[in-house]
Formats: sequence, structure tokens, C-alpha cells
Amino acid sequence: MTEQAWAILRPHRIRWAECDLYGHVNHAAYLTLFEDLRVDHWQSLSGAPIAPDRPGPVVAEIQARYLRAVGFADEVMLACRVASFRRTSFVHEYALLKDGEACCTARAVCVVTRQDTGEKIPLSPELRAAFLAGGATEG
Amino acid sequence: MTEQAWAILRPHRIRWAECDLYGHVNHAAYLTLFEDLRVDHWQSLSGAPIAPDRPGPVVAEIQARYLRAVGFADEVMLACRVASFRRTSFVHEYALLKDGEACCTARAVCVVTRQDTGEKIPLSPELRAAFLAGGATEG
Amino acid sequence: MTEQAWAILRPHRIRWAECDLYGHVNHAAYLTLFEDLRVDHWQSLSGAPIAPDRPGPVVAEIQARYLRAVGFADEVMLACRVASFRRTSFVHEYALLKDGEACCTARAVCVVTRQDTGEKIPLSPELRAAFLAGGATEG
Amino acid sequence: MTEQAWAILRPHRIRWAECDLYGHVNHAAYLTLFEDLRVDHWQSLSGAPIAPDRPGPVVAEIQARYLRAVGFADEVMLACRVASFRRTSFVHEYALLKDGEACCTARAVCVVTRQDTGEKIPLSPELRAAFLAGGATEG
Repeated sequence: MTEQAWAILRPHRIRWAECDLYGHVNHAAYLTLFEDLRVDHWQSLSGAPIAPDRPGPVVAEIQARYLRAVGFADEVMLACRVASFRRTSFVHEYALLKDGEACCTARAVCVVTRQDTGEKIPLSPELRAAFLAGGATEG
Repeated sequence: MTEQAWAILRPHRIRWAECDLYGHVNHAAYLTLFEDLRVDHWQSLSGAPIAPDRPGPVVAEIQARYLRAVGFADEVMLACRVASFRRTSFVHEYALLKDGEACCTARAVCVVTRQDTGEKIPLSPELRAAFLAGGATEG
Repeated sequence: MTEQAWAILRPHRIRWAECDLYGHVNHAAYLTLFEDLRVDHWQSLSGAPIAPDRPGPVVAEIQARYLRAVGFADEVMLACRVASFRRTSFVHEYALLKDGEACCTARAVCVVTRQDTGEKIPLSPELRAAFLAGGATEG
Repeated sequence: MTEQAWAILRPHRIRWAECDLYGHVNHAAYLTLFEDLRVDHWQSLSGAPIAPDRPGPVVAEIQARYLRAVGFADEVMLACRVASFRRTSFVHEYALLKDGEACCTARAVCVVTRQDTGEKIPLSPELRAAFLAGGATEG
């Protein structure tokens, strides 16, 4: 991960339901936490809630690295940013940090799609500008 | 629970994801297992998959009793039956059994609703007959 | 539900992962939200995090009523309080409220148990006092 | 993915709880389905259930590609195999197939770890032989 600043950085306390029987956050639970960031980030940048008749991000590919186990009630930070973008897609980066150290990092390739038609939609000029302002690179 | 036979009775092995950090099936995971039974039972009796433009069961009330803890990889049986019904609703009973003993039992009051209109729909004569044939009581 | 004040009352925005394909919060997802309240309430009253070698609440029975559907991104309030208690158990009440109206209410009978030994543990005088101060009734 | 045969290939019907409000299997739900395969495959090859005091696979990295949406009640096949292995780790490949076509594929780097000590454990000669017999490559 680069030194680009996080667009969203917010606290979270690990929930009982996020842990599995080894007492650690389950690997799939991180993806659901990152999904919240994706939805919120998209909604804040696009200015509209995600809905079937509006373009929204669909995950085409995701990659996660589990670096350090995190346990029940741990106080962590959740972070995301757009690393890069193309005409109809963008790369979203995520991290769960504890004491400033990344415990899990992930990258998702998101394709901007209208759910009701399945059509890929080009990023609007406003979104491209917002991505660039956040430090994302084009291409 | 009465001596009425189960309408569905099928094996299940407890999944990793169903257990919480105390090593037991989480109380909410039972409800998701019973949801599978509700969906399957409804589809098999109504002869059609659940869809927004067809009447389907909506849970108005659920009650669960946790009698005995169940752990990872345990071989259990999942069971359901319709205990009783009224004009637009029915009471669905569920159990998770291990070695023939009930570990969790539940009852849901299900209201037959068309999702797209929100309308309550009277049970069809075919469903009422199927419920009666399964040992359910009316009223 | 009575007019007893809520011990915990906090905002929540419905997450994508809490909704099912009918666009509403799934009936089991409410229980997980209420689980967070149970854990937090217990930890704040007992002054110690839940751990296998300390007494903690185990759900013996739960009852939930689904009064009004709640959808993605809805801003709601989550609430809980102890309604009553006995020697080794207590009744926990929960609600999810939207615009001041209860959309889902639930009650859990919680047995105070040491996870490592399975032993039921009497409520400490401090906990009984805290329950009474919160408006709970004994017996 | 190569032409190596799947070690496990088994039917699954998409559950209500696996779908999100767009009516498709949620991206995190695939990981939980693949987790079942990982656990079962490990248990069948090692001859012992996963437990804290025995070596078991811990996911260090996972990568998933979402190729085609899958919906509620779809009949699919779940598949896994070990693609390669090293001294204390192996690469597990997964797929969800519908009508013979891959809808989601994933690869996990699994480190063989004893949960109670956190120690990485070398693969036993029996496991290495089983991996090789299944078509995995070493290194």
C-alpha cells in the first residue's frame, strides 16, 4: 500500500458475531466490514443512495491479505480509498488497522453497473474529479 | 411439542460459520437454518419458488428455546412442520435434534403476503388441504 | 412493553449485509443487532469483558415480534433494558425503533453461566443493584 | 484455472440467506461456502477434525473473481482442490459452477498452524503424498 491518505477512516469495535470459534475475526467478516465502507464511500461521493436504477459499484474481483489476527472487542480502525480508476471501473483499497498497524488489507476491482439493466456505466466527470482529488490515479 | 410427525426431517452437519467464539452454534444461526426449512417447505407445498409477485410466508413472530448446546461438525437433524393455520397465516414449528434429542426448538407465526403489494393473501384450498394432511389443526 | 426507560439507546444505520433479497432487514439479523446490545450492556454493568472464565449471559429463550419492515440505509435506534431478574437469570428486552416507532421488539431469557465449567452463577449484589436501579423487577 | 481435477465437487442450492438485496449471492457468502470446502477437504485428508491443538489451515491470503451472478435457489456445484504446496503452506483453489460454467473462482494461501501455540507446522508426509496424488505441484 502506498502513502496515499485514506478517504474514510473510522473506528470500529469487533463484534461477537464477527468472530469464529478460534476467537478471531473470521476471514469473510472482514469483507462485510469493507462492504460497508464501499457503500458509504460510493454514496458520499455520488451523492445518492445505492439503488437498482442508479449506477453502483459491483465487485468483480477482490483480494485480501490477513496479516495479524484480531479478536473480540478489539478497538480497530476501518479505512478505504480509491487507488485508481478507468472508464467504468475503479480499484478500492481497504484496511483494518489496530494500534496503527494493518491487520487486514484488501483491494476490490469495482465495476460501475446499473443493476436493473446490467449495463456498465462510465464514471461521471464529478466522480472522476472526486477520485483524483482523493489521490487516485487514472488508468 | 406434540407427537405430530415432522414434514421435513433432514441431516445437517454444523458448519464452522455457524459457531461463535464459545464453540457453539450461535443463537441467530439456528434461525437461518430454520429459514431454509421454511422456504423449502413452502416451495414444496405451494409448488412454486418464492418470488415477490407470489404469496409467500413472512415471519411476524418467532420464539426459540435453546435447550442444549451444539458444536462444530456435530451431525444433527433439522425438522419442521405446520402446527396450525388460520385464514392468512400459519404456525411453523422447527427443531434441531441431536441423537434424537431436541437441542433447539422454535415456532414462527408466518403471514402469507405478496411482497410486491404487501397484501395478506388467504391460504389456497390446496395449501389448507396439505397442511391438514400433515397433521396441522385449523384455527 | 412497559414505560420503563431504555438502559441503552443508540443510533444505527441499516447495513447492506443486514438486508435480504426482499430489501428488508432479515429476521435473523435483528437478533445479531440485539446480541451487540446484550454484550455491551453486560460488559458495562459487570465492568468486565465477556470471557470464558467469567460469568456471562447465555440465551436460553428468545422471542421476537416483527412489527414493521425496515430497509437498507434506514436510520434507526437500537434499545435494550433488563425487565426482570431472578437468582441466576434475567429477562432482557430489546427494540429497534424508527421515527420513534418500534419495528421489532424482542425478549431474551439469559442465564448467567460460566462458559468454561457450564455452571450457573448467581447474579452479584452489584448486578442486582444495577438492574433494580435501571427499573427491573425481581422475581 | 488448469485442467487439474477437482478433489471435492458437490451440489449446493443457493440459500435465501446467501443472497443480498440485489437478489444475487453476496460476494462474502462465496467465501463462507468455500470455507466449508476447505474444512471438509482438510479433515478428509488429515483424518482428524479441526481443533485448536492440531495443525489446521489458516487463510493468509484470498483472491476471488466474480464472473457471473448467481441467484436464489440456483442449483450449483461447489469445487475445491490443492493446486500447490510448500513446507508449511498450500494453495487451495475453489469454484462455484453453474451449468458447468464457473461463476466464481478463488484461491487461498493457507498456512498450516497450531491454533493454541500459533506455530507453523510442516505438512506431514501423508498430506504431501495426498496433495501430490490429487495433482498438486510442490514449490
